[in-house]
Amino acid sequence: MNPVQFIAAKRDGQEHSSADLQAFVQAFMSGAVVDYQAAAWLMAAFLRGLSSAETLAFTDALANSGRTYPLGYFGARSVDKHSTGGVGDKTTLVVAPLCAALGVVMPKMSGRGLGFTGGTLDKLESIPGFRIHLSAEEFEAVVSRVGVAICAQTSDLVPADGRFYALRDVTATVESAPLIAASIMSKKLAIGCPSIVLDIKVGSGSFGRSLEQAEALARLMLDLGSRAGRRMTAVLSGMEQPLGLAVGNSLEVLEAVAALRGQGPADLREHSLALSAQIVAAASLAPSPEAARPKCLAALDNGRGLAKLAEMIRAQGGDADAVLAGNLPRAPLVRTVVADRTGFVSSIDTRCVGEVAMQLGAGRSRKEDTVDHRVGIVLLAKVGDAVQAGQALADVHAASEEAASAAAFALRQALTVGDYPPRPAPLVLGVMRG
Amino acid sequence: MNPVQFIAAKRDGQEHSSADLQAFVQAFMSGAVVDYQAAAWLMAAFLRGLSSAETLAFTDALANSGRTYPLGYFGARSVDKHSTGGVGDKTTLVVAPLCAALGVVMPKMSGRGLGFTGGTLDKLESIPGFRIHLSAEEFEAVVSRVGVAICAQTSDLVPADGRFYALRDVTATVESAPLIAASIMSKKLAIGCPSIVLDIKVGSGSFGRSLEQAEALARLMLDLGSRAGRRMTAVLSGMEQPLGLAVGNSLEVLEAVAALRGQGPADLREHSLALSAQIVAAASLAPSPEAARPKCLAALDNGRGLAKLAEMIRAQGGDADAVLAGNLPRAPLVRTVVADRTGFVSSIDTRCVGEVAMQLGAGRSRKEDTVDHRVGIVLLAKVGDAVQAGQALADVHAASEEAASAAAFALRQALTVGDYPPRPAPLVLGVMRG
Repeated sequence: MNPVQFIAAKRDGQEHSSADLQAFVQAFMSGAVVDYQAAAWLMAAFLRGLSSAETLAFTDALANSGRTYPLGYFGARSVDKHSTGGVGDKTTLVVAPLCAALGVVMPKMSGRGLGFTGGTLDKLESIPGFRIHLSAEEFEAVVSRVGVAICAQTSDLVPADGRFYALRDVTATVESAPLIAASIMSKKLAIGCPSIVLDIKVGSGSFGRSLEQAEALARLMLDLGSRAGRRMTAVLSGMEQPLGLAVGNSLEVLEAVAALRGQGPADLREHSLALSAQIVAAASLAPSPEAARPKCLAALDNGRGLAKLAEMIRAQGGDADAVLAGNLPRAPLVRTVVADRTGFVSSIDTRCVGEVAMQLGAGRSRKEDTVDHRVGIVLLAKVGDAVQAGQALADVHAASEEAASAAAFALRQALTVGDYPPRPAPLVLGVMRG
Repeated sequence: MNPVQFIAAKRDGQEHSSADLQAFVQAFMSGAVVDYQAAAWLMAAFLRGLSSAETLAFTDALANSGRTYPLGYFGARSVDKHSTGGVGDKTTLVVAPLCAALGVVMPKMSGRGLGFTGGTLDKLESIPGFRIHLSAEEFEAVVSRVGVAICAQTSDLVPADGRFYALRDVTATVESAPLIAASIMSKKLAIGCPSIVLDIKVGSGSFGRSLEQAEALARLMLDLGSRAGRRMTAVLSGMEQPLGLAVGNSLEVLEAVAALRGQGPADLREHSLALSAQIVAAASLAPSPEAARPKCLAALDNGRGLAKLAEMIRAQGGDADAVLAGNLPRAPLVRTVVADRTGFVSSIDTRCVGEVAMQLGAGRSRKEDTVDHRVGIVLLAKVGDAVQAGQALADVHAASEEAASAAAFALRQALTVGDYPPRPAPLVLGVMRG
């Protein structure tokens, strides 16, 4: 393994052998390849691309850099679900317990939020006592007993991905489809679920992908999973406005609970049902997503999904009663943003909404930032809604007057009221299978 | 200065402003930009290129990262000479004292060898007592008194270039024309000579450049120098076989001394005269290189150049008498490689000769390696020479039997004897001016 020759090969557009990629990842983990060499390679790979054989080999090398669960370790009915992330995306909090209530095994390792999108772990940490850091043994025990656990990636799982990801984040090499696909799929392959359902976001509230780019990324991940013997499904879903109404950690947990009570915003309910139906079908608990949908609807409306959420929260040390009672920490100030004219909400600058929430303290601009779980935004109108001048458009939940004022000002620019309602955008843009 | 945005801009093929490049170099020196970020940017710059405005701004930022001498500090007749390096290239040891003897002021900071090409500093260190590390004050004093000094770059001169170069060396980002040009020219601009003469090597014994690539690199450096108000000359010289006969540090010093006695190999003599004539004309000590040539020839044959070399060696603490007496450390073993057939030397694998010398200990494969100044190769025939079967082709000067055997074996492959002499290759391929 000569690091300089390896970097030069990718720089010159050559294809790496699987053995060379494996040796490179191992050398990076052992310290023989140092950060600046990995960074130079990442940029060369970003600009020159990785072939599908290279992406597969890199994914395998990442997956095998630490502990891996054998394929099927969590059973034939275990399904791993992954979302590429978007503003207000609390789907996992609804879908994971809902599917678990229907017999799917959901061993889920999630991430934290970065930038304008939130992370499931931050949302869960707004629950008093909830432990996101489980040992491998605890994780396995909760999955086995409850059927669902959501925790942080354990440190012995794909450690190479963590190191590469941290480097990509500070070297402008994040937005490469092969590197994204390898990072996501290495974690999925290491968990060993026979079925994987991907939720790939498209639009301004996600990481700015076009439908074509999202489809290409989905195809790449479906191929990686299929070649590793996984049953693969990818749902492409629109993210032109926040999903649901709440953006911010405890606010989103409460909205997820409402959805599991059969209430909550229509788009969150619909998106959760669509994804759950795919997951239940992937676990062979229904012959098709269409056949699975009534079961999912029932578990949403009869409270079985909510009961499973409470069971999981308790199993991970959290105060489920507080969650069910809506008793989570709240921001001291609520500031309302009103419409300055009568008309229809014609667009929401979703990325801006995410950034306002981040500025309020709900997210991180840097990894070291701490999160204020109480703060955020609750939209009171969504795209297409008719509004009167002076009608409330959104509530800002803030920790201070200054933060509230800045957020309200920015939010007013992000919410556009026009003369006509826009054509409704579909929530699910397509489903692809591997 | 946001490092990630800066890297992303180059990654996406955008052009940096001069202010941004300046801020980037400053941030790298202050530690706000770290090595892996600089490495990612270097790879992006390697693959996306730098415009001529960017290259100029980067060159200026490097030059201004430390101490700089004002333009003309060493006088109107000061000339800086730079060679891109090749196997057996001891031209500086001949040219610098020769030109100084004719009234040119030669303040020369040189480099060490890396890879298969040697470095002037390593050659000079084979002289007992010679100090290559001078303080800025000592350097200025020797230049002022003797008219020529050759020393290592002082640590306060273009420190940013040193750090970028070290990083390029280990991240496969060396062979980029804008990065090479900026690295070389930043050092030249910092010294402040009004005239700069570049010796750009072409062919297998240099860093593998074609004539077109060498011309493009020359054009880039001429432009950088002209824009900074320098009088620029570039000599493109062929390096299809080693320059002269000796490859190795003390062996090359002795060959340079022979050349300064009016003896020595014809190609070294001719190349030294061609370069010296350009330098003397650049210093306006002759109306043209053609007019300068007889003066250079005289200084070569009447011993004035050699006397100036001895004066410089003494001024830098070296044992000039040992050099003049040919009394430098010698390798304990000499092994002769003979021709296995009668014919003509049809080609010399020059890079291989350089690598054999490096393996013997004359050079470094890594910066940390120490150099054995005694060892090397002396060719006894050059391309086009008629040889008899059994006639000596080269002497290997080695430290051990094992090293001698390995070198002799490799050298035999590098020297090809054929039926016909090849067409002679010209030594000077062209002269370009800025």
